[in-house]
Amino acid sequence: MDLPRTDYDTPFDITRSSHVVLTVKDLKASRLFYTEVIGLIVTVQDGDTLYLRGIEEACHHSLVLRQAASEPAALRIGMRVLRERDLDHLKAFFEGKGCPVAWAEVPHQGRTLHATDVVGTPLEFCATMPVVPRALTKFHLHRGGAAARLDHYQILVPDVRMACEFYMSAGFWLSEYIMPDCGEFAGVFLQRKGNPHDIVFFREAGPRLHHAAFTSPETYNILHACDVAGTLGFGARVERGPGRHGPGHAMYVYFRDPDGHRIELFNTHYQAMDMEVGPVRWDPANARMMAPWGLPAQKKWFTQATPFAGVAPSEPSTASNPMTLERFLAEPAH
Amino acid sequence: MDLPRTDYDTPFDITRSSHVVLTVKDLKASRLFYTEVIGLIVTVQDGDTLYLRGIEEACHHSLVLRQAASEPAALRIGMRVLRERDLDHLKAFFEGKGCPVAWAEVPHQGRTLHATDVVGTPLEFCATMPVVPRALTKFHLHRGGAAARLDHYQILVPDVRMACEFYMSAGFWLSEYIMPDCGEFAGVFLQRKGNPHDIVFFREAGPRLHHAAFTSPETYNILHACDVAGTLGFGARVERGPGRHGPGHAMYVYFRDPDGHRIELFNTHYQAMDMEVGPVRWDPANARMMAPWGLPAQKKWFTQATPFAGVAPSEPSTASNPMTLERFLAEPAH
Amino acid sequence: MDLPRTDYDTPFDITRSSHVVLTVKDLKASRLFYTEVIGLIVTVQDGDTLYLRGIEEACHHSLVLRQAASEPAALRIGMRVLRERDLDHLKAFFEGKGCPVAWAEVPHQGRTLHATDVVGTPLEFCATMPVVPRALTKFHLHRGGAAARLDHYQILVPDVRMACEFYMSAGFWLSEYIMPDCGEFAGVFLQRKGNPHDIVFFREAGPRLHHAAFTSPETYNILHACDVAGTLGFGARVERGPGRHGPGHAMYVYFRDPDGHRIELFNTHYQAMDMEVGPVRWDPANARMMAPWGLPAQKKWFTQATPFAGVAPSEPSTASNPMTLERFLAEPAH
Amino acid sequence: MDLPRTDYDTPFDITRSSHVVLTVKDLKASRLFYTEVIGLIVTVQDGDTLYLRGIEEACHHSLVLRQAASEPAALRIGMRVLRERDLDHLKAFFEGKGCPVAWAEVPHQGRTLHATDVVGTPLEFCATMPVVPRALTKFHLHRGGAAARLDHYQILVPDVRMACEFYMSAGFWLSEYIMPDCGEFAGVFLQRKGNPHDIVFFREAGPRLHHAAFTSPETYNILHACDVAGTLGFGARVERGPGRHGPGHAMYVYFRDPDGHRIELFNTHYQAMDMEVGPVRWDPANARMMAPWGLPAQKKWFTQATPFAGVAPSEPSTASNPMTLERFLAEPAH
Repeated sequence: MDLPRTDYDTPFDITRSSHVVLTVKDLKASRLFYTEVIGLIVTVQDGDTLYLRGIEEACHHSLVLRQAASEPAALRIGMRVLRERDLDHLKAFFEGKGCPVAWAEVPHQGRTLHATDVVGTPLEFCATMPVVPRALTKFHLHRGGAAARLDHYQILVPDVRMACEFYMSAGFWLSEYIMPDCGEFAGVFLQRKGNPHDIVFFREAGPRLHHAAFTSPETYNILHACDVAGTLGFGARVERGPGRHGPGHAMYVYFRDPDGHRIELFNTHYQAMDMEVGPVRWDPANARMMAPWGLPAQKKWFTQATPFAGVAPSEPSTASNPMTLERFLAEPAH
Repeated sequence: MDLPRTDYDTPFDITRSSHVVLTVKDLKASRLFYTEVIGLIVTVQDGDTLYLRGIEEACHHSLVLRQAASEPAALRIGMRVLRERDLDHLKAFFEGKGCPVAWAEVPHQGRTLHATDVVGTPLEFCATMPVVPRALTKFHLHRGGAAARLDHYQILVPDVRMACEFYMSAGFWLSEYIMPDCGEFAGVFLQRKGNPHDIVFFREAGPRLHHAAFTSPETYNILHACDVAGTLGFGARVERGPGRHGPGHAMYVYFRDPDGHRIELFNTHYQAMDMEVGPVRWDPANARMMAPWGLPAQKKWFTQATPFAGVAPSEPSTASNPMTLERFLAEPAH
Repeated sequence: MDLPRTDYDTPFDITRSSHVVLTVKDLKASRLFYTEVIGLIVTVQDGDTLYLRGIEEACHHSLVLRQAASEPAALRIGMRVLRERDLDHLKAFFEGKGCPVAWAEVPHQGRTLHATDVVGTPLEFCATMPVVPRALTKFHLHRGGAAARLDHYQILVPDVRMACEFYMSAGFWLSEYIMPDCGEFAGVFLQRKGNPHDIVFFREAGPRLHHAAFTSPETYNILHACDVAGTLGFGARVERGPGRHGPGHAMYVYFRDPDGHRIELFNTHYQAMDMEVGPVRWDPANARMMAPWGLPAQKKWFTQATPFAGVAPSEPSTASNPMTLERFLAEPAH
Repeated sequence: MDLPRTDYDTPFDITRSSHVVLTVKDLKASRLFYTEVIGLIVTVQDGDTLYLRGIEEACHHSLVLRQAASEPAALRIGMRVLRERDLDHLKAFFEGKGCPVAWAEVPHQGRTLHATDVVGTPLEFCATMPVVPRALTKFHLHRGGAAARLDHYQILVPDVRMACEFYMSAGFWLSEYIMPDCGEFAGVFLQRKGNPHDIVFFREAGPRLHHAAFTSPETYNILHACDVAGTLGFGARVERGPGRHGPGHAMYVYFRDPDGHRIELFNTHYQAMDMEVGPVRWDPANARMMAPWGLPAQKKWFTQATPFAGVAPSEPSTASNPMTLERFLAEPAH
């Protein structure tokens, strides 16, 4: 199949994935989980809204948790643009695509644009946030996974190609993708900031937020986050790993937070900013494609995800059939 | 239930678990696995027998692999005594217990005593081996898990109490054990060298060798062993973990070698040489007893093991019913 | 003092520091050092020239070593641009600044531009290199520091402000700088790729190459590189560290290669791609500015550097007077 | 020179180094240092006395800090014996050697014997302490170096041979020693618990306490302790390292606590419990003997130490002349 092409000459410059906004049922439980297990730093709590950032982040927040009685949901995923004027160009871009787009007032962010992409993901863009001190060298405050910064998020959508074409037309590079020999995208890894991912799409009912991923400084921190999770009663929230990814190559672990939102900690990505290095294709027919060693992820890792508030998911026309832990264990001589 | 008592005044001094002797079908495949993934150092290959040791070991071998066409088996597990004269006292001890015992000629070992314990495990004891250089600081030769030294082995037996009483009468300390509120031992951790385990028994059909365990210097090495396993085609041999043990508290990973023998790499045990610190009891009714975080071990981790050559396993009178991965995944709201 | 300003609208896009070209006296000794201690991968050896890359690099080389009988020297430092056309715009830029610039034929690189910056540093730019496989997941081939990729280089120059203004007019961001209360730049950290440094300048006689820096995946790798250096006879080549930087915050170690070229291994930098986060100033009056813990660097770390071939260094008008190890030890109550 | 011989048949069983008792001037400053940087756990504070233990220790204390207005001093170093009756045999042993020995009442310890060894070191022995919970798996409480357990202490004495003979007659094994080709002991490493050291002696004015050493689980923890020291204002207290020892092979760092008492954190020792493995000799003529890579220790690391309260140090008849950092830097082509 043909690959979509990146537009390297967009009139705007999206620089990176920036933040995620989630609703939670019990802010106190979430705060314990995110500060002690994941290791985020609290910037401020405004009433029912908690703003957190990674230890190396100088921006105000990369995770916003809003207490709500409704079912836990994702409200928006956020991206940064380089300059204020990029927001105006981006508004025109969304209008040109026929996508909903509007200015919004958002606390602790500069001028903010709300938009919805072609696959229905609610986005927000801003050029600035209030600057806060990096906690990178406040070593005595590092806890659990010492989450350093938001790196990427993964969205489940029925039509991965549609998402991929849209984001590549917005300047995203395709770093890796999963595609059978004679078939369509099962997953795409798209980036702006020069490492493999800012946004990832996999084929499942959606749009839904599969996970948000923070980097950890060291393998030690990833394991320590698991150990702290066990100590603090979150041991059953370690859903997958620690393990090594095929695509992207990262060492990872996946947690489910107290509301079921999925959070990845990982390290050892690679730099990707040379145009001559084409995207890497992965063949889903390879049983070890997703996991070079150890056990596959359980089925719910593939299928469960956080809905976006007010957005009804659609089913894909072709179901995915990944190698799940359940299938693997049922094989006669696994 | 009452606990057996350690005899602190045995006329012999068993100092530590020392080595394991296994048969394998393809010595070349085994050599690749044990040197590159586990990180053992080859001391010498004598025809069809390969002698390996950990990077910190000054003794000649802690793992002996003998090529054989028959089904892979364990031949013996080895222990060290402090002095030559301990061997004579130990011979009398086995005779007194009515256990088979005899002198044996074994290459690359000092005077060696072969014996069988009350639960049928074939043992060998010696006081000396040829001294070889420690490879601890030959850092450029460290590979994979950089296995430092044999630490312990685990044996499956139908009657854990019988094994426990036997070894405690031989001077072993009980460091930890698994026992329900009104029931019998499901597992016991016995030690001589001052950390939690030299020999471990769990209730299953046996005697069979469940695994041999080597220490790794760092968490990094444990993860690196998995990564190298994936690269070298042993990715499916990572059977369990990496994870954190309940009993013993170690960070671990379990591999199956090319013949199916199970090898553990672990670190972060604790020192145990104070008499006033009694054994730690673990309650199997606690679902998180075996694993403070993450997924349980798959069923075969509990049930599959290496037979001892020529020793027919017996079934326990009461089957174990551990929380397996299969049971866990089948639970409605796991 | 005023800070120079970045030109965010240059007609060319320099993406990152890319490579360093050095001469060495004994290619075999260098190869041992760079592959076993630093952990670089050999891409190819062409006669007397050795091309190496980091384990995550898909480009052909990030370090070029050329055997030469003359005194060891740096030939050029290399940078990448995004597209071919950037090279033409860059040529015009250098011409406009009155700097020497010319096309060059360079093996294993696309169209290459040679240029000299205003402080006399010999540079080369290209948009492409031959693509080679990333060795990131060839874990069994990782050695020593497992150097992942070239990250930055540091140049000593008499006039740091002149260098800083030049590079900021070429689109570089100033991430951190060292400046006394009423004085001039002692050091500047400039970046294009979104982490703190691509090129660093400190005030000393120059232009000379102070060091090239490669990232290591983990603290473990940094220490392991030191240990392997000790084993292989390079123990005296560990010149500074391991330690923690003030500016940039990285964990680091500095080696001198067999010819005296200085190589840094480091990890735990931070992401820097938000325009509202201004540069960080460091005050040289703070005795702990350069090293939050431990001992200062010895004097030669500050003063010795690799000359650029055929470029005579000039002295700064004002000498630097850093806190050296020698000064520190001479203080009465250090 | 002849080596003294271990008496393997002493009527008592000293099992391990156990604890250190120090005076400090400001208990609050010490508490901050030992809990946040070193990572010890507070068992209890009784008025002006603080009892601390490592995260894996089930005994009541391994470090006792007593606030005192006098110059900071060491009061005693403590050892464990296996059983109560060993204390009686040990009393006879000291009496037989003509060494001061007497029963003492010591809070939070079982029956305690105070004694002075032949080189004047004040010792105390006990068979039991109150048992407290191991904090090994209370991962959310681990801080700084996560000090796991007291491992050994080093004493400076004028006559190393006298100390060595005394302790070997008390059952200690000689694991490593430093001795020139035609000369006397410069240092000896003696052990009871099966790894290289419980007590170490070096030739300098003494008896004085050079340092107490705690194990850290991982290299990461050793570096993290340094980083936390830097953050909390103890950056100048990192006196030596991180580095790799020649003798003993450990990765180490040395701190000076707020009163100047020296504390080592280290990991990666080796197991030593086989009688046929003779002691390792190190030749002080080898300039890299003490440090396989990096810089030597500064002079004060060799010469400064904590006096024992009320014990006047004596000078050695032959001064040591180690390779200090000061000597090293003064060499023409270091």
